[in-house]
Amino acid sequence: MALSAAAANEATSSANALDRLLDATRPGMERVNAMILDKASSHVELVPEVARYLIDSGGKRLRPMLTIAASMLFGRSTGSEVNFAAAVEFMHNATLLHDDVVDESNMRRGRAAARMKWGNQASVLVGDFLLGQAFMMMVDTGNVEALRVISKAASIIAEGEVLQLAKTRDLTTSSSDYDEVIGAKTATLFEAATEVGAMAGGADAAGRRALRNYGRELGFAFQLVDDVLDYRGEAGTLGKNTGDDLREGKMTLPVILALKQATPAERETIVSALGRIDTGPDQLGQVVAIFERYDTLGRTIVRAETHVRQATDALRSLPASEMKDILAGVAEFTASRAY
Amino acid sequence: MALSAAAANEATSSANALDRLLDATRPGMERVNAMILDKASSHVELVPEVARYLIDSGGKRLRPMLTIAASMLFGRSTGSEVNFAAAVEFMHNATLLHDDVVDESNMRRGRAAARMKWGNQASVLVGDFLLGQAFMMMVDTGNVEALRVISKAASIIAEGEVLQLAKTRDLTTSSSDYDEVIGAKTATLFEAATEVGAMAGGADAAGRRALRNYGRELGFAFQLVDDVLDYRGEAGTLGKNTGDDLREGKMTLPVILALKQATPAERETIVSALGRIDTGPDQLGQVVAIFERYDTLGRTIVRAETHVRQATDALRSLPASEMKDILAGVAEFTASRAY
Repeated sequence: MALSAAAANEATSSANALDRLLDATRPGMERVNAMILDKASSHVELVPEVARYLIDSGGKRLRPMLTIAASMLFGRSTGSEVNFAAAVEFMHNATLLHDDVVDESNMRRGRAAARMKWGNQASVLVGDFLLGQAFMMMVDTGNVEALRVISKAASIIAEGEVLQLAKTRDLTTSSSDYDEVIGAKTATLFEAATEVGAMAGGADAAGRRALRNYGRELGFAFQLVDDVLDYRGEAGTLGKNTGDDLREGKMTLPVILALKQATPAERETIVSALGRIDTGPDQLGQVVAIFERYDTLGRTIVRAETHVRQATDALRSLPASEMKDILAGVAEFTASRAY
Repeated sequence: MALSAAAANEATSSANALDRLLDATRPGMERVNAMILDKASSHVELVPEVARYLIDSGGKRLRPMLTIAASMLFGRSTGSEVNFAAAVEFMHNATLLHDDVVDESNMRRGRAAARMKWGNQASVLVGDFLLGQAFMMMVDTGNVEALRVISKAASIIAEGEVLQLAKTRDLTTSSSDYDEVIGAKTATLFEAATEVGAMAGGADAAGRRALRNYGRELGFAFQLVDDVLDYRGEAGTLGKNTGDDLREGKMTLPVILALKQATPAERETIVSALGRIDTGPDQLGQVVAIFERYDTLGRTIVRAETHVRQATDALRSLPASEMKDILAGVAEFTASRAY
């Protein structure tokens, strides 16, 4: 897909939105980062060693920023938004540690995955530690309703990962199966991040619902774009290797859409590359050529853009504010990453 | 160690204590078992398949029984003890699923470990699901103080497992390192199980403390005996293979004590068998012969018996009751398993 002037403009203004989010949440995020550092510590040396390796590896901390932003949108700060934000980031990092074991990934955020340095064992156990700490931080707020949101999210995320596992290399996977997987494994944590943020900020039921829907739609858009970038990204953009999803046999939307239209020969090309750890650049190129033929990457981006619109629509009922503007911009940035 | 008549008698009367616990907690445990079945269900088929394989595999459900018993000791039933008990069992099963991945175990409770049937991936993810569900059940009670106990336990258990991992095959491991490992990885969940049970039952601060201490000491005794049985058990007694700890390089007390006194040649025999997956019955027999020479299995049991005494002492301040009697008997049974 050619980079049009309009798309380039949009990408620039959306990148601005991310900078604005960064600026607006800076004071809150300083407290979040301090809490993250504190709660990743342990007298068992290996725990902070592994935890900090991942935590300090240059993740954007988008989810906790969204929690802080959501709380700021409603104006009240009780301090609990800091706990919620740090808890959300810990849950995310726990998931990454466990995912790398599940996917047998070698790379994460542009460097060796923790499991390559300390083994699968440490990744599983330190992930468990981070989950426990996430719950501790939530408990410290005494907010049972927010705890319900987070613990439900933990179960649903795991279910989503199991479903994705069960569908590995399953050629009958439908696009609604895919929606179910990414809704559970990705959108649920975005949704929880913004919902508990709104709760901490003193949102009423309508405000809480608005932010929940915003986060959910944003999460869908985010994952759809991620799944495009896995095929199209420049090396290093995502901090993992282009084609990893293909090699891992992940049934993402670009594959699902392609299999639906592919000729028998094209189908054979895809199937022989899918879930094979030794799929090289040539085979990957052949698969991407099939995707281009049926525009499955472009159509995946169109879906992401629909979710972006739904995310900004979710905010519509809220009064105008700079933060609302920023959040809408963040949603647009999510889709613009694909260009 | 010869089986003395006194020990045999004690073993019989202690087994009675377990039967009495089973009888006394039966109505509560029926509700717990129903909740376990309900909360292990999921529309993602693989989740209940893996979860139930483990849950239905004939574990004694000792921890949830202790939660129910602890609540009954204080007489009040709010129903939350059922949630607490089911949550404790889910946490235990989540730990087992993850442990089997960490230890690369083939067997669990006398049959193939879940990871041998569905892979490490499913074991990691279904463990995560069970953890999330455990928190959900706790949240449903609205009891923030109990949630604090449980989430703190989750972190400490993971830390203990990491410490054990870090000490794998580390010949400098001391008996106080060992205490730290089993205190965290095993005693913490027993302690949480009885403490939240007491809370659900309406215990005052002293009662809660008594049950917390009882559970902690019981947990120590339980793990010490487990670590003896790993060398001494008849095949099938523990549902895993005799010598697994040795093959996995686990620095349990019988090894630690033996290394302290061993001649250079004996030390060499132990070291060459420790952490080697192919250590066979002959080598195991040589190691156990060294243990017998320094009575390290017997001395480990003596330590367990000290913890049993401390467990029953912890109950001393409580008024006499049948349940108190049963709990004291359960502690004695724990040590008698070693004979």
